Amino acid sequence: MSKFTPFDYQMMSRAIGLAKRGIYTTSPNPNVGCVIAHEGKVVGEGFHAKAGEPHAEVHAMRMAGDKARGATAYVTLEPCSHYGRTPPCSLGLINAGVKRVVCAMTDPNPQVGGRGFNMLREAGIEVDVGLLEQEARALNPAFLKRMETRKPFVQLKMAASIDGQTALANGRSQWITSTQARRDVQHYRAQASAILSTSQTVLADDASLNVRWSELPQDVQRHYAETSLRQPVRVILDRAHQLHSELKLYQSNSSILTVAETDADICVELDSHHQLRLDQLFQTLAAEHNINHVWVEAGATLAKSLIEQQLVDEIILYMAPKIMGADGRGLFGALGLNDMAQAIDLDIKELRQVGPDIRVVMTPIWKEE
Amino acid sequence: MSKFTPFDYQMMSRAIGLAKRGIYTTSPNPNVGCVIAHEGKVVGEGFHAKAGEPHAEVHAMRMAGDKARGATAYVTLEPCSHYGRTPPCSLGLINAGVKRVVCAMTDPNPQVGGRGFNMLREAGIEVDVGLLEQEARALNPAFLKRMETRKPFVQLKMAASIDGQTALANGRSQWITSTQARRDVQHYRAQASAILSTSQTVLADDASLNVRWSELPQDVQRHYAETSLRQPVRVILDRAHQLHSELKLYQSNSSILTVAETDADICVELDSHHQLRLDQLFQTLAAEHNINHVWVEAGATLAKSLIEQQLVDEIILYMAPKIMGADGRGLFGALGLNDMAQAIDLDIKELRQVGPDIRVVMTPIWKEE
Repeated sequence: MSKFTPFDYQMMSRAIGLAKRGIYTTSPNPNVGCVIAHEGKVVGEGFHAKAGEPHAEVHAMRMAGDKARGATAYVTLEPCSHYGRTPPCSLGLINAGVKRVVCAMTDPNPQVGGRGFNMLREAGIEVDVGLLEQEARALNPAFLKRMETRKPFVQLKMAASIDGQTALANGRSQWITSTQARRDVQHYRAQASAILSTSQTVLADDASLNVRWSELPQDVQRHYAETSLRQPVRVILDRAHQLHSELKLYQSNSSILTVAETDADICVELDSHHQLRLDQLFQTLAAEHNINHVWVEAGATLAKSLIEQQLVDEIILYMAPKIMGADGRGLFGALGLNDMAQAIDLDIKELRQVGPDIRVVMTPIWKEE
Repeated sequence: MSKFTPFDYQMMSRAIGLAKRGIYTTSPNPNVGCVIAHEGKVVGEGFHAKAGEPHAEVHAMRMAGDKARGATAYVTLEPCSHYGRTPPCSLGLINAGVKRVVCAMTDPNPQVGGRGFNMLREAGIEVDVGLLEQEARALNPAFLKRMETRKPFVQLKMAASIDGQTALANGRSQWITSTQARRDVQHYRAQASAILSTSQTVLADDASLNVRWSELPQDVQRHYAETSLRQPVRVILDRAHQLHSELKLYQSNSSILTVAETDADICVELDSHHQLRLDQLFQTLAAEHNINHVWVEAGATLAKSLIEQQLVDEIILYMAPKIMGADGRGLFGALGLNDMAQAIDLDIKELRQVGPDIRVVMTPIWKEE
């Protein structure tokens, strides 16, 4: 028999729903929700909103006050056991007198995983783990990827006509997709830890590559005040040192990390094709900048490198119902394939219309090397 | 106040549903359904199944017998008034003694439109026209286009990878799309009056371009017996007279019309680009072969000509979730566009997955010449 009751499921679902309210702001921390229930009633609840601010459990305990004594706490992620910017939540739950802690999943960081549970159990608290684990994992694909692999989760955004062209032969591309599709991009940018692009793209479009609150979907704006807007860091491959302070990129106050072989914020080596080593860049972003989630907006050259090096976790492709002709610029550049078996297979996760355009979300299925 | 009652709507909906059962077999005739109701009860119903066989009204009258006297007949299209392979249905309804005839729409053929109604009215029958007209028109887009413009309705089928490639640089393309998508094509072919292709495509794939009953979707097979399978005529552009009797094309017993400048079943002139005049071909198909509906399966060259000459009514594009690289063969060939405003705009009518692939149905929005 399951150790979880229908009431347990209901409370954990509620905690997962709360956790989602942090998706635009928690980076580099995970999204976590917590509900405290006593005798079949919710007495406290909360979610983690922002690094440096209280964890979900703290909000829920503050709300519950004395009613936490003898209660059950439902948390989407193992409560922390270490002193960071806040004292450990496991200690907080012990002091608050909760009787039982139900968790969706263990902390994925192998150095801390399980310690929170041990601390609680040593204090005599009943701990049950694994309720709605899959749903809880889906709250934090990027945080989990960094914790489990030391690499960020990489989403590649592309836009093309229905015949796969990203620009005309003369380079013109404004605009292929609709206003609605371009605004849709904003809510993806807003969830990322970093936006990766190239100086070519920045110079061609004089792109800001920031999140514009006024362009976020209305349902996002309702829960996300303009004053708490978090800007992803902009990571720009600038090998020829072309970026300069006149660009719009430098007009907005979110931070910029330049990438080159030398004289840049992040210096990476060249690979055997004399290109900047993207795998090294991603490792540095994860290890030194706590970047969970990279959103890539660039041209065919970078897209091709990422695809060929199997560094993409998800492709978000916007396709406009337009025919541009095969003499334009194709999505991924030339790949030199000789056999259909060499084509890169994708799995469609989601297909929908955004305004007049199509949005398709796909996961590459990498072949064995 | 509307002259139509809720019961009238119900009966006409039923007639429209019946008409749809003929969509694979009626060509070149229209799909028509008929319901005869007396004192709130259906006493007869039928649909037109095949040219040369009884019209929908005849089936319904046979079923109703004496109960047609004093009844109301609901027909999706104006009953005919001329002696063809069957006697005029208007006369049949008069002789059967119906009191009222409700029709969705007038016969679109300007030479006969309204004569059926006049015949009925002169016999003292109440005639009401226009109930669910839009739905009734949607039963016969191709028949209506031929009647109204003397040109066939042209559907262009294409298949590509998600990056718009129809083949690798070396010409390999088997298979880009899935078995499910290729079977899905069968139910489109089965609805067409003619399948248009080129000798290049026929030779490259040794294509049969026929309908294979065993590959039709199961829900189609249930209502469409293998023994009543109708094969569209295969129209092949064969300017260099490359077709020969060893080809699979000649193994199946459906008919073939070759097209060339001379020495072909249909001879057409060359246009200013020294290409076969497709507009002339379509006019000939409509006028001399009663072709309502052309389903095009060919390569980028023919697709490009059709698009540039604004001869396409609908594009059915299958896209496989695969990346093939921009060095393959693009969907429509080079169009030489210099400005984004020259791109050909499409309107998405339908978007869905077919097996692992995407099917998108689009209507071109032609710019003024």
